[in-house]
Amino acid sequence: MTGSKKGKGRRSAEPKVVFEPIGVIRTPYKEDAPYQPVDSDEGDFRLVLRPEYSSGLERLESFRYIYVLYFVHKIDREAEMKVFPPWAYGTEVGVFASRSPVRANRIGLSVVRLKGIEGNEVATSGLDVFDGTPLLDIKPYIKELDSKDDANYGWVEELDDMEHLILHIKGIPHDY
Amino acid sequence: MTGSKKGKGRRSAEPKVVFEPIGVIRTPYKEDAPYQPVDSDEGDFRLVLRPEYSSGLERLESFRYIYVLYFVHKIDREAEMKVFPPWAYGTEVGVFASRSPVRANRIGLSVVRLKGIEGNEVATSGLDVFDGTPLLDIKPYIKELDSKDDANYGWVEELDDMEHLILHIKGIPHDY
Repeated sequence: MTGSKKGKGRRSAEPKVVFEPIGVIRTPYKEDAPYQPVDSDEGDFRLVLRPEYSSGLERLESFRYIYVLYFVHKIDREAEMKVFPPWAYGTEVGVFASRSPVRANRIGLSVVRLKGIEGNEVATSGLDVFDGTPLLDIKPYIKELDSKDDANYGWVEELDDMEHLILHIKGIPHDY
Repeated sequence: MTGSKKGKGRRSAEPKVVFEPIGVIRTPYKEDAPYQPVDSDEGDFRLVLRPEYSSGLERLESFRYIYVLYFVHKIDREAEMKVFPPWAYGTEVGVFASRSPVRANRIGLSVVRLKGIEGNEVATSGLDVFDGTPLLDIKPYIKELDSKDDANYGWVEELDDMEHLILHIKGIPHDY
């Protein structure tokens, strides 16, 4: 897999970055998963760390929200620079203006509520990933740094029916 | 680098995850950097994408805030599971309850304000990274998904002098 300086075209010989999963994410989703985390107490969502990382969880429980970073492993197609978010009526946007999992580096990022920690397992609110997803990192979500009151919805605001679309973005089941 | 199943002790033979930088981050920090992004319009902070990724930026400019993910490349020590945040008076916490850059997988995450896009360059508010940091991903920060009104400060709330500490967390220069 190394030394592939030629033949790949788009990528150059810049140094690669190598990570090793710190554990695995357990979810009820074996075949299908929502687009985004659903903030619900229902369902069994757990970050299962390798035992040697357990002590790195100390005092994490004091945070209401956490960031979960993971490798989007169940994708078998190449990233395109333009994407059509499935809920946005054919609107085309750049991949970096989207949360599409099919991106140049398939790093997933979700903000979830922390429900509890036992040993090397962190229970969370709903996560939008398949069972068995490799876990890369956990970070505390800190109000002052991460919660932006004046954040916006970007291009989503320009679409008709934005409120309805936001239900899709949030992965909330709805009948209309 | 492969086949190192023995001799490393802590890490097992789980598949590694390999990413290639999509570009580089330019900042004024050559030797020293703040702990966290400073939300200021001063200074030259730019995400410089490889030209082949330029079109992935389309419509990103409609977002006020973005997530920047990067590889913390200027660290030459191994991660410890317990850390002492430098501004927290000797408080010891688990590394996953901290935003320390010295962690199992050195993925950095910053929320910054988007100032403008020109070609393959994204100008941002202050970023807490060294010049030359490898850029891994850009994602839109979407109000409904990412801004949590009821987020807290976790263990920081238990310390004396929390307001002062938050200035440190945010990297804001102050005289006391």
